[in-house]
Amino acid sequence: MIYLDNSATTYPKPTCVYEALDYANRNLAFNAGRGNYSVSNQASKIIDETRESIASFVKADARQVSFVSSATEALNLIILGLHLEDGDCVYISPFEHNAIVRPLYTLKNYINIEILILPFNTETWEPNLPKIEEMFSIKNPKAIFISQLSNVTGLLIDYEQIFAISKQYNCVTILDSAQSFGIKNPNLDNVDFCVFAGHKSLYASFGVAGIISKKYKELKVIKSGGNGSNSLNHNMPDSGPERIESGSPNIVAIYGLLTSSKWLKNNDVLKHEEELTKYLIKSLSSLKKIIVYKPSDIFKLLGIVSFNVEGYLSDDVATILNDEFEIATRSGYHCSPFVHNFIDSEKYNGTVRISLGAFNTHDDIDQLICALKSL
Amino acid sequence: MIYLDNSATTYPKPTCVYEALDYANRNLAFNAGRGNYSVSNQASKIIDETRESIASFVKADARQVSFVSSATEALNLIILGLHLEDGDCVYISPFEHNAIVRPLYTLKNYINIEILILPFNTETWEPNLPKIEEMFSIKNPKAIFISQLSNVTGLLIDYEQIFAISKQYNCVTILDSAQSFGIKNPNLDNVDFCVFAGHKSLYASFGVAGIISKKYKELKVIKSGGNGSNSLNHNMPDSGPERIESGSPNIVAIYGLLTSSKWLKNNDVLKHEEELTKYLIKSLSSLKKIIVYKPSDIFKLLGIVSFNVEGYLSDDVATILNDEFEIATRSGYHCSPFVHNFIDSEKYNGTVRISLGAFNTHDDIDQLICALKSL
Repeated sequence: MIYLDNSATTYPKPTCVYEALDYANRNLAFNAGRGNYSVSNQASKIIDETRESIASFVKADARQVSFVSSATEALNLIILGLHLEDGDCVYISPFEHNAIVRPLYTLKNYINIEILILPFNTETWEPNLPKIEEMFSIKNPKAIFISQLSNVTGLLIDYEQIFAISKQYNCVTILDSAQSFGIKNPNLDNVDFCVFAGHKSLYASFGVAGIISKKYKELKVIKSGGNGSNSLNHNMPDSGPERIESGSPNIVAIYGLLTSSKWLKNNDVLKHEEELTKYLIKSLSSLKKIIVYKPSDIFKLLGIVSFNVEGYLSDDVATILNDEFEIATRSGYHCSPFVHNFIDSEKYNGTVRISLGAFNTHDDIDQLICALKSL
Repeated sequence: MIYLDNSATTYPKPTCVYEALDYANRNLAFNAGRGNYSVSNQASKIIDETRESIASFVKADARQVSFVSSATEALNLIILGLHLEDGDCVYISPFEHNAIVRPLYTLKNYINIEILILPFNTETWEPNLPKIEEMFSIKNPKAIFISQLSNVTGLLIDYEQIFAISKQYNCVTILDSAQSFGIKNPNLDNVDFCVFAGHKSLYASFGVAGIISKKYKELKVIKSGGNGSNSLNHNMPDSGPERIESGSPNIVAIYGLLTSSKWLKNNDVLKHEEELTKYLIKSLSSLKKIIVYKPSDIFKLLGIVSFNVEGYLSDDVATILNDEFEIATRSGYHCSPFVHNFIDSEKYNGTVRISLGAFNTHDDIDQLICALKSL
């Protein structure tokens, strides 16, 4: 199998991560912070060390890093935890994923928020900043959600400029870094909450993700439960990452993340992905009947490229690639409801998406191109 | 190390579970239901097979089984998802854990619910049914939460009679089976939502737990996100387990659970635990200066026994057991705020808790007793 669905989950992981997960399952899988015994305390230390390792990617403080089970959970805790009220305006980019869109619409069932889509130029894929400033001045932003890297198009979205404008309105800024954290690390200067996913660009396993923030105390508690301390208190802690961490920590997944984050620091996956992305775009663009979705400046894409083949629905192409060539890609809407209107891919029922990882090669791309030529 | 903290998480797991987790990390860790390729479809099939395996413990239908990341998450989704309104009365047993108590008090910050504790006899530890009937008739129960097995005392709580009475009031019944599912399987006749935890009595890993219910459609959606289907719809599905399943499924943990549930069906862990529990109670009761917390009928306890030593705080005993004897126990309040008043253990700052697992032996208990004699 040639695996080209690394945005869904990176595969394979580095060998050291598999070894770490196996070791942790057999030797470290105790309940951190809940026992007065050595291996439980050891688990707590591993969690602290992993907070430090994640924080170091973005020069944050370890105490800003929380761990939850998935980026979806992290985004739900933020969205439902913000003190949004009737009439508040929330902005998202057209590239956002259902991990943001659905919780916002879930909230909208109870609170009359307005969900507005930021205008982006369909040629350059750049934010239309003057128009955004105008929108903000008319309908002040209460919260804004942007993905650092679009899971459908591979676009590195210019969140920095948008967040800088947002901050003039005392707006809460949320950066979804699920597709990039660890590889292309964000600048958190104007970011209130940054979300990362262990099993994607961080090359760890399912079961761990988290938030980097100085502002946990500003979130309402949504999920609560035992946290091994202060058992007689019916409330979660007032501040710090523990405010949103309830239930037994997944120490095995956290130890895997510690291992993978060390591996990432010693391997230039960014350079590898940049090179392969350029090669992929160039190779796809050379084919007839292929529509490659890209902005005028292709250097804004990283690791992910979407395309379609004239005369085929996206699902049909992915099915042929799997059945006839053992090439694993993803097709359809990719849980991103608004981007297909933006790139005009609805007539293909979405896109065929190629998402690259640390272990893909030029040969993988050559084989994909060879397969596509047969269509 | 002698590990006597199996209620926090069972350790060790069966060898076949470690092997399954390692195999799954290396070979099955794809994103189920999100790709048009073979290994993604294989992941979906494993999830369906695991639903069947879990359902078979309680003769339920596979489509009643949902998977989430932890029992704490499951209970939060239920508690916040119930359509509770101002003035509603919710009942809990005095044995409930903060995975239930804290979400209820979190909800109480927004909705004026009344949280009432069911009366239990302090000698027999049986529910006071006439008094419960009287309470229900005065303050009708809207929802009731009972643990099948108390995480502090090891009591098998008589939920069946209480739920039968509750059902006269069209009350929603929630059984927390985190400490027993897989070993001592519940009767779900009057249970609307049953919660299980993979990493405890089911001998799987962290990262998977779930709910068994016919009534997902009656829950408000709390957590939402991508689920690989119907991407253009901003809402979660109307019914079925998928209503509460969002984000990438933890296929590795689910495959571990499939493996462990098969192992449990071939190993009589219940008989082993019943025998060891009796031996533990008998051995502890023979010691001077030891207060064993137990009901008049000790056969109501399974796998867990709490005690204290006269003249010591519970934490001090656990620390000595760890530091001097390498015996891992848990002390304190165990995330259960109300039980310590019931058993009168607050003066010891909680209890020392012994919780047994499939791999404990009579010799483990003998060594514990020997250590306690030195105090």
